[in-house]
Amino acid sequence: LSQKISILLNCRSCGAEISPESGKYSCPKCGGILQVKYARSVNKDSFFSYSSRSGVWRFFEMLPVERRENIVSLEEGNTPLIRTESLGEGVYVKDETRNPTGSFKDRPNTVGISKAVELGAKTIAIASSGNAAGSLSAYAAKASLECVVGVPEDTPNSKLKQIMVFGAKVVKVRGTYSAAFNLIRESSGKYGWHNLTSVCTANPYQVEGDKTAAYEIYERLNNPDWVAIPLGAGPLLVGIYRGFWELREAGLIDKIPRLIGVQAEECAPIARAYKNGEKEVTPWERKPHTIAHSIADPLTGYSQDGTLTLEKIRESNGVAESVNDDEMLEAVWQLARGEGIFAEPAAASTLAAFNKLKRNGIITGGEKVVLLVTGTGLKSSAALDRLGEAPVIDPDPDQLMKLVS
Amino acid sequence: LSQKISILLNCRSCGAEISPESGKYSCPKCGGILQVKYARSVNKDSFFSYSSRSGVWRFFEMLPVERRENIVSLEEGNTPLIRTESLGEGVYVKDETRNPTGSFKDRPNTVGISKAVELGAKTIAIASSGNAAGSLSAYAAKASLECVVGVPEDTPNSKLKQIMVFGAKVVKVRGTYSAAFNLIRESSGKYGWHNLTSVCTANPYQVEGDKTAAYEIYERLNNPDWVAIPLGAGPLLVGIYRGFWELREAGLIDKIPRLIGVQAEECAPIARAYKNGEKEVTPWERKPHTIAHSIADPLTGYSQDGTLTLEKIRESNGVAESVNDDEMLEAVWQLARGEGIFAEPAAASTLAAFNKLKRNGIITGGEKVVLLVTGTGLKSSAALDRLGEAPVIDPDPDQLMKLVS
Repeated sequence: LSQKISILLNCRSCGAEISPESGKYSCPKCGGILQVKYARSVNKDSFFSYSSRSGVWRFFEMLPVERRENIVSLEEGNTPLIRTESLGEGVYVKDETRNPTGSFKDRPNTVGISKAVELGAKTIAIASSGNAAGSLSAYAAKASLECVVGVPEDTPNSKLKQIMVFGAKVVKVRGTYSAAFNLIRESSGKYGWHNLTSVCTANPYQVEGDKTAAYEIYERLNNPDWVAIPLGAGPLLVGIYRGFWELREAGLIDKIPRLIGVQAEECAPIARAYKNGEKEVTPWERKPHTIAHSIADPLTGYSQDGTLTLEKIRESNGVAESVNDDEMLEAVWQLARGEGIFAEPAAASTLAAFNKLKRNGIITGGEKVVLLVTGTGLKSSAALDRLGEAPVIDPDPDQLMKLVS
Repeated sequence: LSQKISILLNCRSCGAEISPESGKYSCPKCGGILQVKYARSVNKDSFFSYSSRSGVWRFFEMLPVERRENIVSLEEGNTPLIRTESLGEGVYVKDETRNPTGSFKDRPNTVGISKAVELGAKTIAIASSGNAAGSLSAYAAKASLECVVGVPEDTPNSKLKQIMVFGAKVVKVRGTYSAAFNLIRESSGKYGWHNLTSVCTANPYQVEGDKTAAYEIYERLNNPDWVAIPLGAGPLLVGIYRGFWELREAGLIDKIPRLIGVQAEECAPIARAYKNGEKEVTPWERKPHTIAHSIADPLTGYSQDGTLTLEKIRESNGVAESVNDDEMLEAVWQLARGEGIFAEPAAASTLAAFNKLKRNGIITGGEKVVLLVTGTGLKSSAALDRLGEAPVIDPDPDQLMKLVS
């Protein structure tokens, strides 16, 4: 049995140290972002010491849950890292669509909910553009916890239904994702719900689940030159940075891969700040209109999350890029028809950005590139509306041949 | 490198032996069902000798592909076997929704397409109620083969779009699944396409992929008392029977689990023949109206497939059962809200049948039962129409609390 040493939370802004047992998910002193601090030093043996069918809980020793009996798992992680043939030499897809609920969100949620169970939660809450809540509601069902979900009012029905089938209580919130975010934050404070919204401002534990994607990439490839990641607020990028940082601290790798953060042109607060050379990210003003629902996050009211993400991009010597809807749709076809992987547009944004960065000479031949493909296309009709209808025929081989040739 | 000894095909009806190199997928002498015959004896070491991230190709030595370079894989199989808490002691779910395209069909298709590549195929074809073609078209994309798909005209749009996104040529065929089946069989003969329709009459290789589900169950549970399997024509059941039979031949288990074949009440030719004590299955007369599209197969023109399935149910001392739409929907909720698994109605039919067989005292407490959950609910809107709509609110905690409590 595990001899884990307990953890602390510390504020990234004011440095305050907070006990997890306080039940606080953000800094009670300054409202800053908390991060998990492990009261032990990381060494090579800490990483791969456990056996589990979960790609997240294999790394139990590196995660902020103290007792294994609190783990709520659906066998997430251990996703394929595919050496592509159609996308060129050295290009790999980390296929996060293969997680239990069809997106990478199962990684942060399995950690977040397990910690919530450890802290005695009865009700958990989340603001989500769809995938995170579709995931969390499944884990809540498994753990028999009540789950409250706020989504932006334009969330596709296909994503809503997944949340509802698991029995979560879902409301559509008028306004953008940020309106839902702020409602859930305020309500969680008011009613004592555990806020499992997956941005760092809201919850310090979930980003620890995100980092396991870095460990899995390391296991297969050591350290690639580039890792491309779709960005809303960017906790996945922050987590992956942290994962590679820990691997470097432990002496397992020499350098952290350059991280590419990818946003939708119609909602790109982090990419804009990056391009303008700004230190701080400011919220996006316009209401976003894009098929990339999962990453259309204006950051209104919690832009410090974007600033943290931007910091990590720069610390990795990476880049932030934005792509438009047509480029994402093109990338959806490219993944489907070249590799047999059906991604939602936001998830294919990394391939769209790769195409762009290669055209612009920023990524060069011979470099090892990992594209995170973060969510399945099965939940999103956006990529499909342009496909047209299948023709109807009689059961007659001649009619079939005429259509096929 | 492998020293595989080559295989033969032999006809289950007339006993004729056929070389795979002939490119025949059914008996050229009598039209009977071919099965793969390995020119070697099976022993304990044959099963688990290879290392692969695919749960199918780990068992390369037991499969009908001769050269590993012909393998077309999307890392299928190795699906979770979940010890359920909500369904009772000893009840396990084999969660086949976790396959690359969301259904168990990835198992037969990875084997079928790899063999087609080995045989030099340019164009492959399939008749499908949706899942099998959604899967095959992904593998065809990966292998750069042309793929022709015939589906029944009432196939849900959500399933059609998955097929189309991978670039397959899809037609809706007027009539039931059987009309599509016969069209693809006739056209494949006429135009030299490789028929990868996943029933045994059409293709002898794919059922070899199905059997790997039995190997995986064995690895975790040895031999359970019961294994429940949704049935259209039933190749999955035939394959699972074969897998356990091989394990018994090799001395790894003493007896084959009792197999439960589950059909939809609205289309239950195999369950009907079972209940009437008949030796042969006859086609279903009425056009089926059920939400269980994936298993609504009237078997018109290839009822020998049903007869083969029925034989295997009886040889295992199993049962065939049918369930109605309401029972399947109830089972969908039960899986979602108890276990965090979102199944399509046809896939939840095994839980519906389990509930029924337990009520009727056929399954008793203390028995080990595995329920195959064969396909994800994300592709099917049938389970979701009854969920209603999520309410729209302003970002106001009081409005939220009123709806939640």
